[in-house]
Amino acid sequence: MTIRPPAEIGMPLDEVDTPALVVDLDAFERNLRRLADRVAGSGVRLRPHAKTHKCAVIALKQMELGAVGVCCQKVSEAEALVYGGVKDVLVTNEIVGKTKLRRLMGLAGSARIATCADDPAQVTALDAAAGEAGVTLPVHVEINMGGNRCGVEPGKPALDLARKIVDAPHLSFAGLQAYHGSAQHLRGWQERQKAIAGAVEKAAATRDLLAQNGIECATITGAGTGTFEFESASGVYTELQCGSYIFMDADYGRNLDRDGQATRAFEPSLFVWATVMSRPNEERAIVDAGLKALAFDSGPPTVWDEPAATYDRASDEHGRLLIASATNRLKLGDKVRLVPGHCDPTVNLYDWYVGVRGERVEAIWPIVARGAVY
Amino acid sequence: MTIRPPAEIGMPLDEVDTPALVVDLDAFERNLRRLADRVAGSGVRLRPHAKTHKCAVIALKQMELGAVGVCCQKVSEAEALVYGGVKDVLVTNEIVGKTKLRRLMGLAGSARIATCADDPAQVTALDAAAGEAGVTLPVHVEINMGGNRCGVEPGKPALDLARKIVDAPHLSFAGLQAYHGSAQHLRGWQERQKAIAGAVEKAAATRDLLAQNGIECATITGAGTGTFEFESASGVYTELQCGSYIFMDADYGRNLDRDGQATRAFEPSLFVWATVMSRPNEERAIVDAGLKALAFDSGPPTVWDEPAATYDRASDEHGRLLIASATNRLKLGDKVRLVPGHCDPTVNLYDWYVGVRGERVEAIWPIVARGAVY
Repeated sequence: MTIRPPAEIGMPLDEVDTPALVVDLDAFERNLRRLADRVAGSGVRLRPHAKTHKCAVIALKQMELGAVGVCCQKVSEAEALVYGGVKDVLVTNEIVGKTKLRRLMGLAGSARIATCADDPAQVTALDAAAGEAGVTLPVHVEINMGGNRCGVEPGKPALDLARKIVDAPHLSFAGLQAYHGSAQHLRGWQERQKAIAGAVEKAAATRDLLAQNGIECATITGAGTGTFEFESASGVYTELQCGSYIFMDADYGRNLDRDGQATRAFEPSLFVWATVMSRPNEERAIVDAGLKALAFDSGPPTVWDEPAATYDRASDEHGRLLIASATNRLKLGDKVRLVPGHCDPTVNLYDWYVGVRGERVEAIWPIVARGAVY
Repeated sequence: MTIRPPAEIGMPLDEVDTPALVVDLDAFERNLRRLADRVAGSGVRLRPHAKTHKCAVIALKQMELGAVGVCCQKVSEAEALVYGGVKDVLVTNEIVGKTKLRRLMGLAGSARIATCADDPAQVTALDAAAGEAGVTLPVHVEINMGGNRCGVEPGKPALDLARKIVDAPHLSFAGLQAYHGSAQHLRGWQERQKAIAGAVEKAAATRDLLAQNGIECATITGAGTGTFEFESASGVYTELQCGSYIFMDADYGRNLDRDGQATRAFEPSLFVWATVMSRPNEERAIVDAGLKALAFDSGPPTVWDEPAATYDRASDEHGRLLIASATNRLKLGDKVRLVPGHCDPTVNLYDWYVGVRGERVEAIWPIVARGAVY
């Protein structure tokens, strides 16, 4: 049931079947190195989020450049990564349900596995499952940094939960999960700086309260592609969880640098390769990539090879490009690169990355955690 | 790389891992029979769209109840269906590119395969590929019914293209593809009736123009779940392509019947089964189904088991439910059914249907064309 790869090694890009998920390997490697270089010597560790790429090959490349391990959100993602050779995985999420807990513990013999909790009942269940499996599981307290999703409130509620973990015979208290997701896409540099200043304050106050009560936070982990420079310089965060930096996407591309210009921290390396399959008139070109080939939650893709064309409307299997006279050169059968609006859920639609160097296919990597929702 | 099934046959629903794509088999079978009964004796044929379900098992069930075959949108979907035993597949789309054409022709030995065109260059390429494969391929002219996506304009442009197909040595002219997609979700019954009256007029005028020029339209195919009763009664359409009727979704559920009430033509049978994985406070419950488990292009899911709860916000792997005091009984670990906003792209996120009768798992069907984007 795995869909065949749309390419063969050595094939020119133009022959790759569409829609395909194409990685510009030069740009991708520059992104990988940029973050590794910025983190090296900073005193913080890098633990990239594999929910972005869902690919053990990429996780191992990140670790070769110094990452201490990776994060993911789901037990089934952790399985795919560990079975692909990744030796250190933090599930930055709450895990609820016996099946999931047993499967998580099943990985603890093959890799360092850790997770999070935001409720005493989860701690009880994690402890029971770890005891059953005969392992000691590191557990972080997730604190709500303002996104109002999961997480206990900073301060006293976090202390209460940390105490419960410390007291659990089969768990060890690993620190704080302190990711401020809703800060990542604030457009202005100063807005993001201010949001993270607030997060740092909450994390530091919680850390200090725990210390006053004899509980050490070995790790304060969080940060994303939009804000990592602030957490990195905070003196409080010890670990960064950036994910999207390897690929970027149209939405992250709208973030601004300190100088008010579009961010240059990383560059787009992920594209959906699509074919113009209909040219009904002068004003529109229809491509073969719609809702089943691209995520639209953060807006439509941009048309990389033809910036004057706009991706106007998606239906399930089609995309309508509005084109001006300047771009009417898009002919039936032409192929174009689209920059997805949001990389993570776009990647989740594909089974294979087609890695391209220049115009030649160099790698075909399986997206082993595609569809790993459990 | 195919993700494991989240259930076993015989398991109680409550033990099914989440998120999972659950089909209420009783409701599903009622939907199947409702449309089959309405079409029987009407003089029109039923050719349901398999782009909705992407599953050979379901296609064969539709054919057992009288459907003449199925439709799909992509060559790779056609492959999955034909290799799953379906003997008659119409690709209701333009197919561009040598790889795709060769693969399509490769199916013609195993099933009746037909497709569409909206450009003379496609006809030339289809003819060459059919000739190379030694087959005669039935080709429909797709006409633009007002959705302004693919399709030639009705009338003279359709005649010109039909002539080109008639003249092609390895093609046969099959008729008109006349699907009016943008009419399906017009909320009012009379709005939909009016839109389809316009479509019927265009299709009839084109059919008559072709007849005056000695070209017979054996088939005029189109219609969807929102409008089929109008095409069926038109005396012009000969074939219906409804897809979503088997499952329905929250968006189709907002269509109104003739009496101004929410449609009762079909009932929801497709659910995303999700777990409450965090209950941080009294006002919100976080479920484990977000952008990678549900499609949001037509709005968020509704909460079937707790209509007072609203699915407020999705992130990649989480959904935030806003809950009033009446629904605060949702506890950590509880499982709930969500009705997807849009069925087709939601199905495309899963590898398996979990068919449930009452509260017991009765079937686990592979979604063989999941991810079949080529």
